[in-house]
Formats: sequence, structure tokens, C-alpha cells
Amino acid sequence: MTRPIIGRVAPERWRTNGATAPGQRTVGEPGTARIAVDLLGGDQAPAVVVDGALRAAQADPSLHLTLVGPAEAADAVLAALDPPDRQRITTVVTTAGTVRGAAHAVAEGRADALVSAGDTGATVLSAARELGRWPGVRRPALAAVLPTAAGRLVLLDVGSSVDPDEEALLVHARLGSAYASIVFDLKNPRVGLLTIGSEPGKGDRLRRSAPALFASRPLPSGARYVGLVEGGDVVLGTAADVVVTDGFTGNVLLKGLEAGYALTGPPKPGTTLPPRAAVLLGVGGTVVVCHGAATGSDLAAGIAYAADLHRRASVAAIADLLRYSEVSHD
Amino acid sequence: MTRPIIGRVAPERWRTNGATAPGQRTVGEPGTARIAVDLLGGDQAPAVVVDGALRAAQADPSLHLTLVGPAEAADAVLAALDPPDRQRITTVVTTAGTVRGAAHAVAEGRADALVSAGDTGATVLSAARELGRWPGVRRPALAAVLPTAAGRLVLLDVGSSVDPDEEALLVHARLGSAYASIVFDLKNPRVGLLTIGSEPGKGDRLRRSAPALFASRPLPSGARYVGLVEGGDVVLGTAADVVVTDGFTGNVLLKGLEAGYALTGPPKPGTTLPPRAAVLLGVGGTVVVCHGAATGSDLAAGIAYAADLHRRASVAAIADLLRYSEVSHD
Repeated sequence: MTRPIIGRVAPERWRTNGATAPGQRTVGEPGTARIAVDLLGGDQAPAVVVDGALRAAQADPSLHLTLVGPAEAADAVLAALDPPDRQRITTVVTTAGTVRGAAHAVAEGRADALVSAGDTGATVLSAARELGRWPGVRRPALAAVLPTAAGRLVLLDVGSSVDPDEEALLVHARLGSAYASIVFDLKNPRVGLLTIGSEPGKGDRLRRSAPALFASRPLPSGARYVGLVEGGDVVLGTAADVVVTDGFTGNVLLKGLEAGYALTGPPKPGTTLPPRAAVLLGVGGTVVVCHGAATGSDLAAGIAYAADLHRRASVAAIADLLRYSEVSHD
Repeated sequence: MTRPIIGRVAPERWRTNGATAPGQRTVGEPGTARIAVDLLGGDQAPAVVVDGALRAAQADPSLHLTLVGPAEAADAVLAALDPPDRQRITTVVTTAGTVRGAAHAVAEGRADALVSAGDTGATVLSAARELGRWPGVRRPALAAVLPTAAGRLVLLDVGSSVDPDEEALLVHARLGSAYASIVFDLKNPRVGLLTIGSEPGKGDRLRRSAPALFASRPLPSGARYVGLVEGGDVVLGTAADVVVTDGFTGNVLLKGLEAGYALTGPPKPGTTLPPRAAVLLGVGGTVVVCHGAATGSDLAAGIAYAADLHRRASVAAIADLLRYSEVSHD
């Protein structure tokens, strides 16, 4: 990642190519997805983002992109597209605060979702400021879907909340339960707390105190807390559908497993690896975060994932589940 | 794991089968390795430990085992061995404090090394009490060797020190440097600090403060601190030979990667997976810890690894490196 600058959105020049005009609040046609892309997010930005945006636009004719960043980078995308396809690209020219600018486009209804491979902290802060946070969510959580030998699971947090307390872990359990129930179309997801031994009392201070809290509070979507799980359970996938941990441990494990699967193939032979991207849960919009070291292919997968979440109205459905759960239990 | 009981070694009945008599301090013949095995350590103990001890004894005719635990479990090993091989087995009959008993056997010189799949905390405490700790080591570290795409690396801590401060991480860096230089026969090992982004300032509180300390203190064996590494670097192996982290994160990552490699094969095709066992560094003897969920095959690999470390006098060599480093730098 490159630009941890958070602040006012830099003065922008909107350049429409036929799709949306500045200040004009539009709603995409059925099936379209309008994704705001942070051109300066990522270790190799803007090159990999240009590559990723191009791949995504070419793969999905109903995709509209709002590219936020330097003119040259946006021009590189436009130049590589056939003239009719250029109408699906809007550019917001700025060289600072690109992630904030992309979040702003979502907040104003000019885009349906945000994708960035930039600094996670900056993305979380920008998204929270521009889109607001859900009730009860102090720190939004990054949730990743990982392939397992048994299928797939949600791992969270994977980098947003690095020093959480047990209440924050519980909020993540609630967010992850709702997410798993929507994206996996799953009733009663099983929620495990990641630690280093399956007996009570194992783990660090946080993991020794959190289980009592987890056992005492309801989860949305009929999710149930199934107890402590270990690193190997995130690979096998038989113990839980949602694995809750702090953002430090989750990020380290996610990057380790992703690197392993990239070399050796998925844990279940013949299956496809999910996108190397995570969803930010707890903010008022669809936000997808790619790794700082994302490739163009990773960016394209992240953009496609954001489009899919938007088309399914997944984030609104997750928010509804949590709201219903608050009303019915608290 | 099963018996976290720490305390006085329970009254024992020594039953020699020709190898060592009680109270008799012996030194193994050249090439022999006398391993004290905790029969009650491990989730499936004693069955998997009996299986592992048997496999190890049959695979290595120069191996002598001191089996510490219930008579029935030791008898099961003896019954499965050919009569001449039974002379290589000593049993210490006890049903409580088995890991302490095994550590005691090492402390008294009746065994050369200890192997347990029991509770890590109990093993660390027993080993520290019976064998003593090296100067400057408050909490011994568990070090695991992991296969990588580039070869192999040392990951530590993997479960002993779950809430370390930055000084403890630095001690682990010193222990890991010496270990890598000995077991890999490596000059100037590269030491990385595991975090969630390679730029300075990423990570949790501990990882934001530790780099300054790491950069300011010398490491043994000509090891050099190469900076921050991420989860994927533990799989690729190109950035560091020693990866330092807290015991919580290290344990989660280790178990995740081991489970992945067990399913998909190693990250470097055609290579053999190292034993799923870790060495306890910082105590005055050779101690190998297997996972609570270890299989018989894992136990056998752990016993063989302990025997190999003893035959190479690795732990003494590591202690010497650290002592020399203290004298020359501090």
C-alpha cells in the first residue's frame, strides 16, 4: 500500500465518458455494478491496479468503474479498452486521498462499492468516515473467505483490528455469523474462536477471557458458538463455518495459507481458490480490500467480488440480520 | 494433552530391562540415544505414545527409551518388541507428573533427551525446573522447522510464550539464530520479525515497538535482523531463515501450515516434510515437544528428532554460541 493519507478529499476533476456526470446521483441499471477503484492502493500501484481494472472491465460487460487517482493511470485503462467500453469508465482525477475519494463516490451514490489494495488502516478509516459504521461497531472487521478441505469458511478479523478486546472479538463473531449466513446461504453457522489448544484455558490472556463472553451472548442468523478451534481447523473446515480471531493473527494465518495454496493448490483438490480479497464488515457500504502485494489478477478478482456482493445486495442483507438480532435479543 | 500436573515427581518404581538401573548414572554408548518419553502426554495418550515409541524403537536399533507412565502402557510397548529389543526399554511407573518424571530422568543423566506431546505449559515448567534455564532466558522458546519453497526455516515461538514483551521476542531471536546456525549449518542466518505488512509501523502494539529493539542489539552466530516479514514469507522462505513471533501467532500459523502441507504436499515439490515437533530452547537439556493431537507417526518422528539432536550435541552447541555471543557483545 502506498497512501495512508486520510483527510478531506482532494479537489477533483470529474471526467465522464458517457456513464455518470458529476453531481448526478444515478442508480445502476439492473445487473450493472459500479465499482470505485483506488488507483493508488497497493505496493505496485498504480500499475497493478490499472491491470486489474482492465481485466475486470473486459471480463464483465455490465461492470462500470470509477477510477480514482492520477489521470495517467486512468488514461492507461481507457487507452486499452475498445471505444464502446470506455463509456463504462468514469475517472476522478486526484493524486492524494484516493481511497477517501473512492469511499466518497460510494457515499454520494455515484458508485455501488469500493475496492482498494491500499493501507488497510486508511481504507477502514475512510470507509467509516464516508459511509458510517453500523450500531455497536467500533472497529469494522475484515472478513476473508478461505477454502478448506470440507468446503469454505469465513476468517475474521484479517487486519483491521490488531489489538482487540473480547467485546470487539464478539462483535466480529456477530458480523462473521451474518456474513457466512448470507454468502454461504447457510442456516445456523458454527462459530469457533481461534486459539492454540482445544481445551479451556489455553491461549493468551485475550483467548482465556473471551470464551465466557462468547458463550453468554446470542449471535445473529441462529449462529452458535462451538468453542475453541486451532490453526489446523482453518484448513480442515470441519469444526466451524466462522473462525474469529484478532486482526494480527488472522492476517498472518491468511497470508500464510494463501501463499501455501498458491504453491500447492487448494486443500480440496479440484476446487477453485476464492479471491484473495476481504470484505470490510460494519460500515454502511460494500468495501473490498485486497492485499498490498495484490497482483492485477487479484485486483480483478476483488473487483468482481465487490460487484457480486453488490448484485446480491449482500451487505444490506447482513446489516438487516444484525439489526434484527439486536431487536430480538437485546 | 492430558496431564498439566506439575509438582514433585510421583513415587516411582524403576523397572530395568537390562539397560539402566535406578540411581545408576550412565552414559550412552557412542551412537546410542536414550530418550525419556512421557507416556501420558497427548490427546490420545497413552495409545499414540505407545505406538510412537514402538515405531521409533523398531526404526533405530541404537535408540534406548525410558518410558514414563502407567505400567500397562509400557508393557504394551515391551510386548510388541522382540525379546532382545526389550533390553533397550526402561520403564518408570507412575500415573501422575509423567512429564516431570521424564525431565527428571534427563536431569539425573539417566536419559539424554525428553519427548512429550503433553500440555506445553507443563512441559516448559517441568523442563525449566528440572534442567534449569540458560542465562537471560525467562521463558524458554519452542522452535519449529518448517519446509518452505526455498528450503526450510525456523519459526519461533510456537506455543511457549503467548504474551511476550519485546525483550522476550529478542531473546527468541537470539535462540532461533543459534538454532538455525547449528541445525542448518548456516553462517549469518537472516532473522525476520513476523507482522502484517512489510512497511515500518504496521502491526499491533508489540510489533510496532519491537523493530527498534531488534535493530539495536547484536545476535549470535553472525545473524542479522532483516526486518519485517509476513505470513506468506514463512511459506516462500526467501526473506528469512529465522522468523520470530509470539507463541500464540506462531502456534496458529504452524498448525495451519502443517495441516495444509499434510493435505496438499510440501511447498517445494519432492521434498520431505520435517517432523511435526518443536524443540524447547533455553533449558539445560534436549527437549522435544509434539502437538497434543500428534499421531503415533508424529511421536516417532519427534523421538527420532530428539535422538538426532542428542547425537549431534546440538543443544550444547547452541548454548555455547549464546554464551560466546554474551561475552563478546554485552
